[in-house]
Amino acid sequence: MKLEQTINELAKKAKIASTTLTALSTETKNSALATVADFLIMKKQHLQEENKKDLEAGAAKGLSVAMLDRLRLSDGVIDAMVKGLRELITLPDPVGSIENLAKRPNGIQVGRMRIPLGVIAMIYESRPNVTIDAAALCLKTGNAIILRGGSEAINSNIALAAILQQALNIHNIDGNAVQIIPVTDRLAINHLLTLEEDIDLVIPRGGEGLIRFVSQNSRIPVLKHYKGVCHLFVDKDADLEKTIPLVINSKTHRPGVCNAIEGLLIHRDVAEAFLPMIVQALTEAGVEMRGCPQSVKIASQIKPATEDDWGTEFLDLILCVKVVQGFDEAKQYIYRYGSKHTESIITENFTTAQRFISEIDASAVMVNASTRFNDGGQLGLGAEIGISTTKLHAYGPMGLEELTTRKFVVFGQGQVRE
Amino acid sequence: MKLEQTINELAKKAKIASTTLTALSTETKNSALATVADFLIMKKQHLQEENKKDLEAGAAKGLSVAMLDRLRLSDGVIDAMVKGLRELITLPDPVGSIENLAKRPNGIQVGRMRIPLGVIAMIYESRPNVTIDAAALCLKTGNAIILRGGSEAINSNIALAAILQQALNIHNIDGNAVQIIPVTDRLAINHLLTLEEDIDLVIPRGGEGLIRFVSQNSRIPVLKHYKGVCHLFVDKDADLEKTIPLVINSKTHRPGVCNAIEGLLIHRDVAEAFLPMIVQALTEAGVEMRGCPQSVKIASQIKPATEDDWGTEFLDLILCVKVVQGFDEAKQYIYRYGSKHTESIITENFTTAQRFISEIDASAVMVNASTRFNDGGQLGLGAEIGISTTKLHAYGPMGLEELTTRKFVVFGQGQVRE
Repeated sequence: MKLEQTINELAKKAKIASTTLTALSTETKNSALATVADFLIMKKQHLQEENKKDLEAGAAKGLSVAMLDRLRLSDGVIDAMVKGLRELITLPDPVGSIENLAKRPNGIQVGRMRIPLGVIAMIYESRPNVTIDAAALCLKTGNAIILRGGSEAINSNIALAAILQQALNIHNIDGNAVQIIPVTDRLAINHLLTLEEDIDLVIPRGGEGLIRFVSQNSRIPVLKHYKGVCHLFVDKDADLEKTIPLVINSKTHRPGVCNAIEGLLIHRDVAEAFLPMIVQALTEAGVEMRGCPQSVKIASQIKPATEDDWGTEFLDLILCVKVVQGFDEAKQYIYRYGSKHTESIITENFTTAQRFISEIDASAVMVNASTRFNDGGQLGLGAEIGISTTKLHAYGPMGLEELTTRKFVVFGQGQVRE
Repeated sequence: MKLEQTINELAKKAKIASTTLTALSTETKNSALATVADFLIMKKQHLQEENKKDLEAGAAKGLSVAMLDRLRLSDGVIDAMVKGLRELITLPDPVGSIENLAKRPNGIQVGRMRIPLGVIAMIYESRPNVTIDAAALCLKTGNAIILRGGSEAINSNIALAAILQQALNIHNIDGNAVQIIPVTDRLAINHLLTLEEDIDLVIPRGGEGLIRFVSQNSRIPVLKHYKGVCHLFVDKDADLEKTIPLVINSKTHRPGVCNAIEGLLIHRDVAEAFLPMIVQALTEAGVEMRGCPQSVKIASQIKPATEDDWGTEFLDLILCVKVVQGFDEAKQYIYRYGSKHTESIITENFTTAQRFISEIDASAVMVNASTRFNDGGQLGLGAEIGISTTKLHAYGPMGLEELTTRKFVVFGQGQVRE
């Protein structure tokens, strides 16, 4: 009961704060972001001391080296946060811009003004830098934010939230615009997800389990990204020389991220020519291949795939390989095993490229480009709060614009409806 | 169990059909819409016979005259459906257009292509014309639709759905793209709302009870519109002569709809001058006024309002009147009692107008215009499937564009990520 009341009050305060943020000038918001960056540098030692408590508790709890690594506020991580903030300051503020302002026959002018969403709840796992990144994006777009980080990062997150609060205070911005849930009890999330009156959007970031839990228990709209099962389709009209670096980059540039490919589809007409080339390049790059019978017959380094391999998000140097009979089989494979994240075709054929762009359903669909480009920075959004693989509101990387919505504005001279 | 299986299969078929709709040309979609219009005229007699069954059953069940009126497929209602279809044909098809296509520094071209949402479930009450209107908007935007009308309109809806199916067949469009739930059991809705894998969006249309039920039980995103509690704020710098027709139009043009005003806020500086004028005009128009003590003191025709009156959606010739101390009190009143639907200010003051436009949170915010303009047709959307008062995805009237989303498209020449 006490916990629920704490969460209720926190959400209510965030809602009230959110109504004051619309009136802030871009200058004020940018100044606050600059102060956050300055504080991160000034208070680095304190942050790292607080972070050390989390690291020690994590080590005692037996967290893996990889987990501890994600938890660490190293000099490099703090520098990256500062750099991110300074880049964010240079980006245009979408709030208040009016699009499509046009006159109707009766003389009223109708346009659509970009406005903040309101209050956003961010539920995430171990990386404490998300605390700063997410709060900064929300502040820039005039949204209040409620942060719920992983319990293993609680000391780091409280220290980071204190910096955010101080920066808001200095610039006379309501401190309730950025709030952290100070308790690690998981029931806090359950209750938070019922507060549809005060919270406008929930963004979970973390493993599939967390995201599924949030979306199944939330009465508030959720922007979610379950997983990235991405493919490259090598069409019969592919320029095979151009294809090799695209496959290698899409698979090995960072195999542990969501826009790396998990499957390679090859048109049967080029399988005999292309497979030996790409198998050699992938082998040199340390990639294990698991393929369909036809691919195994052509290149014996490919192991036979099991049914479980198709559609698996390996996040590792493992790649499924399948020879397909043509465009339609590739399309059906992607529909069945893809996760609507990123799909790319390699072809020089205009019509095939056009068909792929139109008919393949994914948040980013590409021709002759590495799937690694599906990222807010690479696509020109400047900053990103997550990648949506659901279609409502936003599909793909979410930047500043995706943290806003539009209301209609009408300028009249006394018109009434006939 | 049998019911659940029926619904599962129906949703699965809709999903598969939706993947074929993206490839349809605008010409094909428009031809199908024209055929639906032709059939409505040709089969009018049959439709009215089926509708008569519903009307008789409704009368036997004791439905009110107003309810029976909404249920009736009169000549006028059928004509309006035909007219709506012909107008829809003339509107531009948003699907496939690519916005913001621009080159990134590495030479890839990045744009955002409009695509259908996928499968939309429409849950509505008595008016059977919604069956045609909603199906037509979805077909034009390449979405599959699952229709669940009110049980009292079941015979009319089945007859209308048959017309839609025949039109699709003639134009070689997958008939599963438009489906009607053939059972009236309410459990069908409960189950439908769990099918998040196959249904992308739910749009409920009807009373507050239905909408609340859908949004509390759905795992699928819901676009909702609870109610319209709209206001006009007469600022101290209002042109009072201009104001009278705006108040009368906003209140009395169609008092039973959601964009009619329920409250009139008057700046204290003009209350003494304006109240006698507007009270006379409203009295002549048959409007009952319920007001704050200050308003009652100035104009004795105003009855004292009770606490329950503020924020009530009367949908009738009743209006709340409140004298406010200034802009801030008006803003707070709207925040507390408004429903984020439509808010309008009457003022000649530039700065006050700018503040109102920026700071008031509603799906449509107006200056010197009747609230009755918050309507898809009036605002230039051409057609409307509903009005959203929640901010995710769409806020305000939803036209064709709001039935689509955008995916990223990337055109490369072999670029990889460094």
